[in-house]
Amino acid sequence: MDDLSPGIGQYDDFHTIDWQRDIARDRMRHRYIVKKRTESICDLIRGTHDAWSGWLCVLLVGVAAGAVAGVIDIGTQWMKDLKDGVCPQAFWLNREQCCWSSNDTLYEDYYCAQWYTWPELLGYFRKDAWSFIISYILYVLWSLIFAGLAVLLVRTFAPYACGSGIPEIKTILSGFIIRGYLGKWTLVIKSVGMILAVASGLSLGKEGPLVHVACCIGNIFSYLFPKYGKNEAKKREILSAASAAGVSVAFGAPIGGVLFSLEEVSYYFPLKTLWRSFFCALVAAFILRSINPFGNDHLVMFYVEYTRNWLFVELVPFIILGILGGLVGTIFIKGNIRWCSYRKQSQLGKYPITEVLVIACITAIISFPNTYTRMNTSDLIKLLFSQCGVADVSLLCDYNRNFTNVNSRIEIAEAGPGVHKSLGLLTLALIFKLCITIFTFGIKVPTGLFIPSLVMGAIMGRMVGIGMEQLAYHYPHLWVFQGACSTGENCLSPGLYAMVGAAACLGGVTRMTVSLVVIMFELTGSVKYIVPLMAAVMASKWVGDAFGRRGIYDAHINLNGYPFLDSKEEYTYTALATDIMTPRRNEGPLCVITQDSMTVDSIENVLKSTDHNGFPVVVSQESQYLVGFVLRKDLTLALGNAKKTQEGVVGESYVLFTSHLPQPVSGPTAVKLRKILDMAPITITDQTPVETVIDMFYDYLELLQRRMFCGTSNNLAMKIQNLCYLTKIRKLYLKKLVNNYCRFLMVDDLYMWILQLWSSTFL
Amino acid sequence: MDDLSPGIGQYDDFHTIDWQRDIARDRMRHRYIVKKRTESICDLIRGTHDAWSGWLCVLLVGVAAGAVAGVIDIGTQWMKDLKDGVCPQAFWLNREQCCWSSNDTLYEDYYCAQWYTWPELLGYFRKDAWSFIISYILYVLWSLIFAGLAVLLVRTFAPYACGSGIPEIKTILSGFIIRGYLGKWTLVIKSVGMILAVASGLSLGKEGPLVHVACCIGNIFSYLFPKYGKNEAKKREILSAASAAGVSVAFGAPIGGVLFSLEEVSYYFPLKTLWRSFFCALVAAFILRSINPFGNDHLVMFYVEYTRNWLFVELVPFIILGILGGLVGTIFIKGNIRWCSYRKQSQLGKYPITEVLVIACITAIISFPNTYTRMNTSDLIKLLFSQCGVADVSLLCDYNRNFTNVNSRIEIAEAGPGVHKSLGLLTLALIFKLCITIFTFGIKVPTGLFIPSLVMGAIMGRMVGIGMEQLAYHYPHLWVFQGACSTGENCLSPGLYAMVGAAACLGGVTRMTVSLVVIMFELTGSVKYIVPLMAAVMASKWVGDAFGRRGIYDAHINLNGYPFLDSKEEYTYTALATDIMTPRRNEGPLCVITQDSMTVDSIENVLKSTDHNGFPVVVSQESQYLVGFVLRKDLTLALGNAKKTQEGVVGESYVLFTSHLPQPVSGPTAVKLRKILDMAPITITDQTPVETVIDMFYDYLELLQRRMFCGTSNNLAMKIQNLCYLTKIRKLYLKKLVNNYCRFLMVDDLYMWILQLWSSTFL
Repeated sequence: MDDLSPGIGQYDDFHTIDWQRDIARDRMRHRYIVKKRTESICDLIRGTHDAWSGWLCVLLVGVAAGAVAGVIDIGTQWMKDLKDGVCPQAFWLNREQCCWSSNDTLYEDYYCAQWYTWPELLGYFRKDAWSFIISYILYVLWSLIFAGLAVLLVRTFAPYACGSGIPEIKTILSGFIIRGYLGKWTLVIKSVGMILAVASGLSLGKEGPLVHVACCIGNIFSYLFPKYGKNEAKKREILSAASAAGVSVAFGAPIGGVLFSLEEVSYYFPLKTLWRSFFCALVAAFILRSINPFGNDHLVMFYVEYTRNWLFVELVPFIILGILGGLVGTIFIKGNIRWCSYRKQSQLGKYPITEVLVIACITAIISFPNTYTRMNTSDLIKLLFSQCGVADVSLLCDYNRNFTNVNSRIEIAEAGPGVHKSLGLLTLALIFKLCITIFTFGIKVPTGLFIPSLVMGAIMGRMVGIGMEQLAYHYPHLWVFQGACSTGENCLSPGLYAMVGAAACLGGVTRMTVSLVVIMFELTGSVKYIVPLMAAVMASKWVGDAFGRRGIYDAHINLNGYPFLDSKEEYTYTALATDIMTPRRNEGPLCVITQDSMTVDSIENVLKSTDHNGFPVVVSQESQYLVGFVLRKDLTLALGNAKKTQEGVVGESYVLFTSHLPQPVSGPTAVKLRKILDMAPITITDQTPVETVIDMFYDYLELLQRRMFCGTSNNLAMKIQNLCYLTKIRKLYLKKLVNNYCRFLMVDDLYMWILQLWSSTFL
Repeated sequence: MDDLSPGIGQYDDFHTIDWQRDIARDRMRHRYIVKKRTESICDLIRGTHDAWSGWLCVLLVGVAAGAVAGVIDIGTQWMKDLKDGVCPQAFWLNREQCCWSSNDTLYEDYYCAQWYTWPELLGYFRKDAWSFIISYILYVLWSLIFAGLAVLLVRTFAPYACGSGIPEIKTILSGFIIRGYLGKWTLVIKSVGMILAVASGLSLGKEGPLVHVACCIGNIFSYLFPKYGKNEAKKREILSAASAAGVSVAFGAPIGGVLFSLEEVSYYFPLKTLWRSFFCALVAAFILRSINPFGNDHLVMFYVEYTRNWLFVELVPFIILGILGGLVGTIFIKGNIRWCSYRKQSQLGKYPITEVLVIACITAIISFPNTYTRMNTSDLIKLLFSQCGVADVSLLCDYNRNFTNVNSRIEIAEAGPGVHKSLGLLTLALIFKLCITIFTFGIKVPTGLFIPSLVMGAIMGRMVGIGMEQLAYHYPHLWVFQGACSTGENCLSPGLYAMVGAAACLGGVTRMTVSLVVIMFELTGSVKYIVPLMAAVMASKWVGDAFGRRGIYDAHINLNGYPFLDSKEEYTYTALATDIMTPRRNEGPLCVITQDSMTVDSIENVLKSTDHNGFPVVVSQESQYLVGFVLRKDLTLALGNAKKTQEGVVGESYVLFTSHLPQPVSGPTAVKLRKILDMAPITITDQTPVETVIDMFYDYLELLQRRMFCGTSNNLAMKIQNLCYLTKIRKLYLKKLVNNYCRFLMVDDLYMWILQLWSSTFL
């Protein structure tokens, strides 16, 4: 069926795939199956299986992604409570579950008698400074242990498991091959490492890495179906669906996941993939909901229910939040990229374990005293998003209210000392989170930055929201609030501001738009606030773009020099092909091979003296009409073979690319090489704009040559380092047009020939 | 700046645009502006204006679309109440508004003393059979008047304003030119006609036509910005955004609109367009909300709030609903297409006004007696989606409840006689709607089918829902309901089933998936039911696809023979280029022009004896090496010019495509035509699969030649008819490869040459 010889259709590591060929191969395969389907029952079954295998594969991927995400959620929940204490009766329960079994409903924040904090476990039951110090020390210790374990696992077993993985997945989906990046070891280590890293309290989230994990699952399952496993282009359809499932389980946002896959990561996204991605995301979300790792029935992570509509005037603070989000995003991206490139260039990169431990230590030491940083980041986001109830006694809800019963209307009220205190703590938390996340994103443990970005934005938003609320309380008759706040009812929810701020900040960091707004919907379950969210996200994107067009993922792709051709980027070169090609118009002749007047020796000389990947074959030196294009590798092989196997072939033998022999048949046996000639190479004139040339390259370009790498070692860690040195490789593909005296650009299957032939020799 | 001569870049009516060239032109323009920006303040301002003009344009489009939609909503509301009666105090008020002013809060269904029904207005105040008959007659009369007005307006002023417009917009967005289809007359007449058609009570909706209206607005505004107005490819970015705005205002679903634009209508959808579409959709929705045509603050059209989660076992009826939806969709599509093609072929097509009047008459006569069909379709959907309150006294909520107060829990209850009666009425309504919509969609008034599809599905869903509910009531201890319905609480909402059914049915008709689910969310405000909706929509799509892959829009495109290359369609041709090209391998020589050995006369002979659009230029008849490709139109023009303007050019003059003169310089003056030669035509070998050939055509093919049309009249009505005769034109593009002895396929700017030259003559 697949009439390609083994090895063909396989790509080397760090090479770019040929979309056209792979898709054509799949079509051939499909045609074969369709044709055969009528022949026998067995073939019919095989054909039907083939038709459904795409759906089956995404179903499996969805189920597995949901299950893995459930396990990770449960594991994270348990481990992060371990920093606080343990359930001696049943150590495998986390604090919440431990307290469920106690039937002790009168606990605050899920503390109960069954749960032993570390001081208590050490026999110290008083709540004084010593207890605090013991908790503190153990908190830091556990953080260090978890972080150390995570980095050790990553270093030892799967170096690819570090980071968020999204930049690499974008690159892979754009057609690059990184062997092992989506392998089973990466899957296992990333899952475990993620639990440890999140539990260690580092400023990172597990949402980005979950996308990587889901893609690993997609990759592994694709091998069950040769249609996908053996065809890199088709495999990317499964990977697109898997990345949608990843976001889906990360946020419980299936539609957001599909849009994320579409907007952010995918490169080749036919409509069929859209449907499959949707299905995959949905199955994953459904499975996760069935596992129910949080013990509540909400698929929605930060479910909020605001009772009021937003006012038109509130658009102003929302847009301000958007601008702030864009600024924070820019600061974060610039800071993080600067730190990462410093790490790359300096000695620091050689001590990843130390780096992780130092950062974990600093994070733990600074986090513990501030309740808002000590608590789990997701819980903090939930708290910031929430609306203050009347009977709420937490710091953030300490308003001077005169309420009579708990069912009374929640009126707008003056902020009490608790709110002021929490504002201070939140400011500290914001500064700390921003600084530490810059240093954290990029260390050698699984790190995601959705949650850190969201929390920064939520803090900002909540603060602005409280400000607006107090403004409305103190000046209820201001014209802007008219008709809304004068009745004394709760006319502004600081929680809504937190939500908008979170979206703005995440937008500033990642530069997502549509998918982000949809994720925020699904995250909070509120469709009503589409306009505020959208206004903030657009403002954030515009502000961010003003300072630099790249989101954090694109910035990291650029930093690591992955060969990602960004389809969003616009080229503004004004050059024509004639300006960049070599030899230039009057720079001497093109290096060509003639169809019937060169000997084996002369061709071998040409091969030796140049390093082009291929040569145009022309009628004769005087009459340079294009006959075809021949590849260096084919030519070398064919000449070698001929010398070995064909009798009478010597250095003086003529090499013929014609189908007829030249008239005076004399001399030694000629070598006929017409069969290796590509008789329809793509040609372009030298007046073609460089942009068009680049466009034509998109599909065909074999971007990276093995020789660009420092080594070909199989050691994974080595490869990563090699990858890291490949900075600015993106710019190379333009240089490749210019350097190496090359007018011939090897592309995988079709050969592009910048046609100077006609113009420079005849004009 | 634009260095193209006038006329270049303009396309004829019913021609296909050249995406590549238009995009390249825009790049050139952009480059020019960027370069000039540094020169002076004025240029800087111009550059900035240019950079923002895309956003500004979609902003204006959004505002206008929102405003127009608001006007249409208000107009529709007023007109459809006119069938019932009038507000004598202020005739411009609709019933609801009329009753507001009365302060008479004790009305049921918005009837009050201020509102006069027609019998009352005629002085007949009793409620008896005569009153019913008068109402009936006036209802039918008004229907006929409205429908007649609508069709007259459409026929007289804007024949393009008929139908839903979505198939044509898909075609236009795929790169086809239909002049006037998006013009101002179409806009005005479609808006007015839509109000009349909806008010007439025909089984149609205004949602589809709103997309057309929004696209008209987009088209009109694009002319304010030369960047878009003068570049057909760029204009389509604005149109994509406008179609998103159309759906956004139709359903109050901005995100759904963007996805609809992406999934259903658009062809070329870069990411920048995604953001702009989002922005445009949002602005439009916001403006519509500010106009507040319905008088309630909900942006959400059918806001529902179900109190319960769905059960796992309910997935079974949901999937059954999906299957039913797929079947109904298939029946509808097949029936409608059959009726439309009958209309096209028979005499019926000549009497559009009669047809509309007959259908309006039948619709009105059958609708009036049945409350569910008499009421406005949107209201019916809202009713079907809603949950029965305890104190609800409508037919559909007539349960045998033993409730004590209105705040008591809504328990599951036995259906009363009212429910049974309403089930009967709903069955009749379903059958009627299905039949009449088949005949209605395609008549010469603006017709949308979102609402009719939704209502069919909602009826089906509600019926299944009531069935499930009664099952759960009578057998509460069935294992499938265990733990949910045994407590007697309201464990199943028939309204949810109605929602799922509506989605399934709309999915079956249009084959939308992701966008449909998102629209349903935004329509109902409930994110919780993603899994049921999705399951039903996928089931519906699969069932529908099993009976025919085309949704209603694609079916209509196919029926009308629009040149739409469906990127979703898969080609399963097994042929190679060699199988379809002519002349075949051994069928005699290719028709070529030699570079320096043909005279003016001999070339003119070639032009006369063939009708290829272009010819390959080769070295000589014996040595057929490709020099370039020359277009028939260029060749004709150049030869004519040479004979007129150049002295000494006669029939025996040689025509030279070389840059040097042939050695024996004798005879009359030669004509040098090297400048019209394309020296880098795209060539493919005869071993190329036909699919690849088709792929290469996608971008380049000038699909329709003027001569394929029956006439070139400027009369719009005539053009529509011409369009209608062009059935099966899609298949022509493959035939074009084969017929006409043509191996040369004219494409706009680049020329494709099926390269038989090398292989057939030399192998």
